[in-house]
Amino acid sequence: MDKKDQAIIPAPEPREQVVYGRNAVIELLQTKPESIEKIYLQFNTDHPKLKEIVITARRLKIPCGKARMEKLTLIAGTAKNQGVCALISTLNYYTLDEVLAAPRNSSPLFVILEGLEDPHNVGAIIRTAEAVAADAVIMIEGKGSPINASVHKASAGALSHMRVCKVKSLVKTLDLLRERGFSVVAADMEAEHNYTDIDWKRPTVLVMGAEGSGLGSETRKRCDRIVRIPMAGCVESLNVSVAAGVMLYEAMRQRLG
Amino acid sequence: MDKKDQAIIPAPEPREQVVYGRNAVIELLQTKPESIEKIYLQFNTDHPKLKEIVITARRLKIPCGKARMEKLTLIAGTAKNQGVCALISTLNYYTLDEVLAAPRNSSPLFVILEGLEDPHNVGAIIRTAEAVAADAVIMIEGKGSPINASVHKASAGALSHMRVCKVKSLVKTLDLLRERGFSVVAADMEAEHNYTDIDWKRPTVLVMGAEGSGLGSETRKRCDRIVRIPMAGCVESLNVSVAAGVMLYEAMRQRLG
Repeated sequence: MDKKDQAIIPAPEPREQVVYGRNAVIELLQTKPESIEKIYLQFNTDHPKLKEIVITARRLKIPCGKARMEKLTLIAGTAKNQGVCALISTLNYYTLDEVLAAPRNSSPLFVILEGLEDPHNVGAIIRTAEAVAADAVIMIEGKGSPINASVHKASAGALSHMRVCKVKSLVKTLDLLRERGFSVVAADMEAEHNYTDIDWKRPTVLVMGAEGSGLGSETRKRCDRIVRIPMAGCVESLNVSVAAGVMLYEAMRQRLG
Repeated sequence: MDKKDQAIIPAPEPREQVVYGRNAVIELLQTKPESIEKIYLQFNTDHPKLKEIVITARRLKIPCGKARMEKLTLIAGTAKNQGVCALISTLNYYTLDEVLAAPRNSSPLFVILEGLEDPHNVGAIIRTAEAVAADAVIMIEGKGSPINASVHKASAGALSHMRVCKVKSLVKTLDLLRERGFSVVAADMEAEHNYTDIDWKRPTVLVMGAEGSGLGSETRKRCDRIVRIPMAGCVESLNVSVAAGVMLYEAMRQRLG
């Protein structure tokens, strides 16, 4: 078989193993080059960032291949790949114990995603979690969007830095974290307390419910504080990644202040 | 013109309509150009009427995009689209004067989108703007995403409440608003002031730059305050709709407090 025909064939869930977009691939080359199996770039382009990618990849001895846009679209699963896709080995998930044993903050801050479906939201929340230097993002096994190429792209490189845990049971995870002294916080439009009125400086787990269904009832029972993001206009809620951003930056404001 | 060529068919979302066919689109450009959000044309064609459409649309600053026939067929809902579709908005745009004459807040709050491309971001920001009861969202004619079905969906109904203005010149709009006493605020990671350190209670225009390119230089010159959203981790910026949410809720926090 000719070497050029040996392209790594996307598996049944191809997008779990592909990162696309110029900035996302550059970030990956800088931070986790060992995870990259091969990079595919668009024919006939002299975009400076694509050149930068080729030069860096060659230096790191990462195989590069030229591909037509149709092929890149197939690999990435979207035409919006900016002319570059990197095939990567799957994400290195952390266990909760690993994160708890080596916290990033003296008063740790965790974000739990309870089955969010939209990869743009998952990626944007991981990006915000990294921006506030949260300790980890926790996802529930088999619930919600996998960490696919769209999540990578929306995270704008944050997935190369943020520790992601995948847990089997949200209920057990919340029970464990509460035993360890964490305050479990979630948002609900009916809540009594404004999100700015609670203490975000203590060890905190922020639980974000799924786009349509919101928080599960077992999750709700385990919340120490349910907070309200005030709505002054005619809508009842925010986009979930915006809501997470508003709360995580309130945590940051209190912690910096 | 035969009536059946002028077919106006409903697109997937109720608030967006599509006109297709060369003569129908030319007619629309002559009679109601302001209603056109975007025109999609077939790749690789030199049909004189399609050229005429492109030239007229460019003169009128109506965004044009190239699309494959498969995509045009999806947009038009029929393969008999003759290589061109126009998306029409049924949104009622407000003029700046109308909004200024009937402000929603005693100290008005405007959000300007400087050419944002991603409809998820545009919709999410309109949703957040409505959540904080901003006075209007201002968009620039011919720049960035049109108000299409994806924007409507991402706004989660906020477009039915939020006043949207479409202006020809961002520079003139900023000059006018500054004359009227507005403070023009934008975010930049290099800025000196933290976004929590400025006074959001006075009449404010928040300008959000496009996803890739950020603020234009002429916009930057007209900013009274450029603020920084602190980044504690290893990413340099937030998703633009999250950044808008963080700042608009700081405005809300100050205004409520």
